[in-house]
Amino acid sequence: MKKHWMRTRRNDPEGLRNRVLDVAADLFQSRGYHATGMREVVSATDTSSGALHHHFPTKESLGVAVIAHRVAPAVRETWIEPIRRAESLQSGIRKVFRNVIGGIDRRGAVRGCPLNNLAMELAYSDPLFRDALQSIFTEWQAALEVRIADTPGGGRLGRARRAAAATFIIASYSGAMNLAKATQSAAPLRVAVRTLSEWLREQQVVAG
Amino acid sequence: MKKHWMRTRRNDPEGLRNRVLDVAADLFQSRGYHATGMREVVSATDTSSGALHHHFPTKESLGVAVIAHRVAPAVRETWIEPIRRAESLQSGIRKVFRNVIGGIDRRGAVRGCPLNNLAMELAYSDPLFRDALQSIFTEWQAALEVRIADTPGGGRLGRARRAAAATFIIASYSGAMNLAKATQSAAPLRVAVRTLSEWLREQQVVAG
Repeated sequence: MKKHWMRTRRNDPEGLRNRVLDVAADLFQSRGYHATGMREVVSATDTSSGALHHHFPTKESLGVAVIAHRVAPAVRETWIEPIRRAESLQSGIRKVFRNVIGGIDRRGAVRGCPLNNLAMELAYSDPLFRDALQSIFTEWQAALEVRIADTPGGGRLGRARRAAAATFIIASYSGAMNLAKATQSAAPLRVAVRTLSEWLREQQVVAG
Repeated sequence: MKKHWMRTRRNDPEGLRNRVLDVAADLFQSRGYHATGMREVVSATDTSSGALHHHFPTKESLGVAVIAHRVAPAVRETWIEPIRRAESLQSGIRKVFRNVIGGIDRRGAVRGCPLNNLAMELAYSDPLFRDALQSIFTEWQAALEVRIADTPGGGRLGRARRAAAATFIIASYSGAMNLAKATQSAAPLRVAVRTLSEWLREQQVVAG
């Protein structure tokens, strides 16, 4: 039975690859990249060191794959798609915060934003990861700029002002998440979304 | 000569302790807590493993001491004292950002905020460090609340609104620093200080 089970695993390389990415993304998110050893990934994935190394010869290659196939999709799902699909910029931002705060309330703990966590740990010290992380921020920023241009106030702003507004929205969210993580409480995110909503109204960067 | 030099070192335990804290704070800041080994601290401090362990028996004890004796003073020097001493809240915030941006321009790289870096890496996974990091945020927040209450607009706000404004200022700064670190550019900090200044004016949370 054991042999058959192992054979099944071996015959599903795509499944193993996905399990490794899930496990590594989870460990990087909760403990950090450097605090996670390849041996822990092996043991949490219930595989062998050889099988892991077949897919990811180095920890760096696993890090790059987690950023591309887990972190980037998480930012798209959490922020970019809801902003694109929302009726208005403001309702989109509110929805994003509501979902994130809801997740924290359900979990009872704040693990932080997977993009921020890795960017804070790796963007200065590891040029290898910097470009990959930066391109996710660029995509996030671009999605916000498009929605800002859609609003009556945003349409009147020049390109640089729209870019600044998008940066400020991302910065407020990221920093509120920092505070939420540091204090293990969703309260800073509630403050940020309320203040951001007021700010967007004052800027008239809201749907008419 | 060597012997005399070593004896001098041994006879200056306070000096060694301070050198270890400087070196460890620098390594934690540039690479992260988990990415830094005690052996690197020993070699960068030019001491022995025994001498290091005499002062800091564990890496955790070194981490706690770095937070108390290097990170907290850095936040006081960078943020809390300039805000306390500034003519107005707004001029204080501008001065803080100007200094931080100047430091980045001189260095040509963004290592991030020492408090944020450690909080992002350790606040979720290490309860040991969480309280120490959180109390620095609390002190920072309190200093801002006091200055906000001093302003004409802030004096009219209730306590909860003043606390929210302080949280939003810290969040915008922290998040802008995240983006600055992720993109290795001071541009997000320039955007944040301009937008924050406008926001403070709109809130009338500025000195009259």
